[in-house]
Amino acid sequence: MSKTVIAIDAMGGDYGPAVTIAGLARTHNARPHTYFRLYGDAAKINAELKKHPKLAAASEVIHCDVEVEMDAKPSQALRKGRKVSGMWRAIQAVKDGEAQACVSAGNTGALMAMSKVILRTQPGIERPAIACIWPTIRGESVVLDVGANIGGTAAQYVQFAAMGAAYARTVFGIKKPEIGMLNIGVEEMKGTDAVKEAAELLSESELNFKGFVEGDGIGRGEVDVVVTDGFTGNIALKTAEGTARQMAEYLRQAMSSSLLTKIGYLFAKSGFAALRARMDPNASNGGMFLGLNGVVVKSHGGTDADGFATAVEVAIEAADADMLGEISQRIEKIQALLDDALAAPLD
Amino acid sequence: MSKTVIAIDAMGGDYGPAVTIAGLARTHNARPHTYFRLYGDAAKINAELKKHPKLAAASEVIHCDVEVEMDAKPSQALRKGRKVSGMWRAIQAVKDGEAQACVSAGNTGALMAMSKVILRTQPGIERPAIACIWPTIRGESVVLDVGANIGGTAAQYVQFAAMGAAYARTVFGIKKPEIGMLNIGVEEMKGTDAVKEAAELLSESELNFKGFVEGDGIGRGEVDVVVTDGFTGNIALKTAEGTARQMAEYLRQAMSSSLLTKIGYLFAKSGFAALRARMDPNASNGGMFLGLNGVVVKSHGGTDADGFATAVEVAIEAADADMLGEISQRIEKIQALLDDALAAPLD
Repeated sequence: MSKTVIAIDAMGGDYGPAVTIAGLARTHNARPHTYFRLYGDAAKINAELKKHPKLAAASEVIHCDVEVEMDAKPSQALRKGRKVSGMWRAIQAVKDGEAQACVSAGNTGALMAMSKVILRTQPGIERPAIACIWPTIRGESVVLDVGANIGGTAAQYVQFAAMGAAYARTVFGIKKPEIGMLNIGVEEMKGTDAVKEAAELLSESELNFKGFVEGDGIGRGEVDVVVTDGFTGNIALKTAEGTARQMAEYLRQAMSSSLLTKIGYLFAKSGFAALRARMDPNASNGGMFLGLNGVVVKSHGGTDADGFATAVEVAIEAADADMLGEISQRIEKIQALLDDALAAPLD
Repeated sequence: MSKTVIAIDAMGGDYGPAVTIAGLARTHNARPHTYFRLYGDAAKINAELKKHPKLAAASEVIHCDVEVEMDAKPSQALRKGRKVSGMWRAIQAVKDGEAQACVSAGNTGALMAMSKVILRTQPGIERPAIACIWPTIRGESVVLDVGANIGGTAAQYVQFAAMGAAYARTVFGIKKPEIGMLNIGVEEMKGTDAVKEAAELLSESELNFKGFVEGDGIGRGEVDVVVTDGFTGNIALKTAEGTARQMAEYLRQAMSSSLLTKIGYLFAKSGFAALRARMDPNASNGGMFLGLNGVVVKSHGGTDADGFATAVEVAIEAADADMLGEISQRIEKIQALLDDALAAPLD
């Protein structure tokens, strides 16, 4: 088995190495052939590594003095963290071929800005996107963009669709992923001009396009890949997270309302544990940056060790399954279509 | 007590008079001083009215040959339904002063198009918006726009904020409603230019503006009024509805997974009933059309009698509390601010 190396921004996230190293220990347990390059404060990283000797044996610590702050603006982060921060150097390791993927639980805007500067976009892709894994009633779907770009052109949406399809195919093993465009109605007349034009282009493409999807169609799992812009996608994602938490709170209140409901809760405890596991946002943690010349995964900043491990798993899968190659191929196939559309006179 | 008259598009919705008349019977029970003008197929309406003699005594049936189909495009609906459809005539009754408000469970696009043609927008308002009532952990919030407009200018967002504040004040009795703008981050640098500019204008206005709100802040009840454009708002609303249904399905599966969880369910039955009531979208049914010279409420097309009754309640409250007068006053107050902003040189 070939050796996969993952570069880790070990200081990123709300809890730093306490969570990232504990997460890596789980990943390494499940995948002992994976190696790690850990970027950040060596003393703090080593203190955590001591607790996990097997992981320590598969890791190299690269000390970095500078940390990107969680609330720094992307421009600030670039100014202070260029070349010297753990985040920058973890991404640089991918660029230099020292690692096959990079994972960070740090500042999303900074991570995207540095990734763009260091890795650049793949040929034929105008803008990278952030794809999330969305738990649905049927299983899991990919939703993109959830925060890299505000708005988008028809051509960019088509590129997002191709990237999302490649992600679903390589990481989730879905042969011909079904693609939908997020819209406010399933009728042709609704939506912005860019959304409608993108839908037309997608129906002519070789991608498996199923038309428009409304907000409630995401959780229903109507398609494998949902395409939207980063403003709408981020608000949909946060709204869903908020609603799930709200329902959990309603449930808690309902179950503690009387003696009978409390007794019922005790009997049904295993059921509630199963429910909590399915409602747990950490179980599907890992925002994939798509469209760059390298695999970069953003873990949720407030995640726990399990969540961080899930994000690292996603990075390993993408690297091992050559997701970038799959994206290149798909972009090549739709390029002619996009060229024709750009050359066509406006009506 | 003065007599409130509500005009009803009795044929609207997925189930027509079977639901609308049953809903009105409940409303009339709670508010015997309310009278109804029922527009639609007289034979079908009277067949349902027979079951509710008290309601029948407080209702007048106005026969209309034409019905607006649920899936008609707004332009089609206007062509076929102008002056003759039940929907048109119910709105016209508000314009003519024969009713204080109009309620329909019919085609949203058609209802908005006809409302705009018949009632026109209030002075100082460029575009009407659809406001929904969003259940939160703290209570209820108003979210607008959830479907009337795609995109918006800074001035339009400020108008939405003033309209939403007037709605929250008159119908929910909140003296100084807290207002937030939906955005992808709470930082100043994020969001579209129009959203950022609107936030600046709102902080200078007399409105109680609290800054940006993210998607998960809506259900948390961070503010009383959430302002956004109809594309984003509609997708957020549908996503929340879908997530609530998804959680209910997870719960159902979890509670039927073993004998113990089934026994627990029996013990906790009253708790689950309370939970279902809170998760029920019908309990907060009623999309208010704001910014028109008349009160128009859109009920969910697939609603039941309780949901329709809730929508009618909202219409009665808005009419009785002079919501339109409150909107006019608030728009007048922010007009100078908007005029200054439009006159200022672009930087």
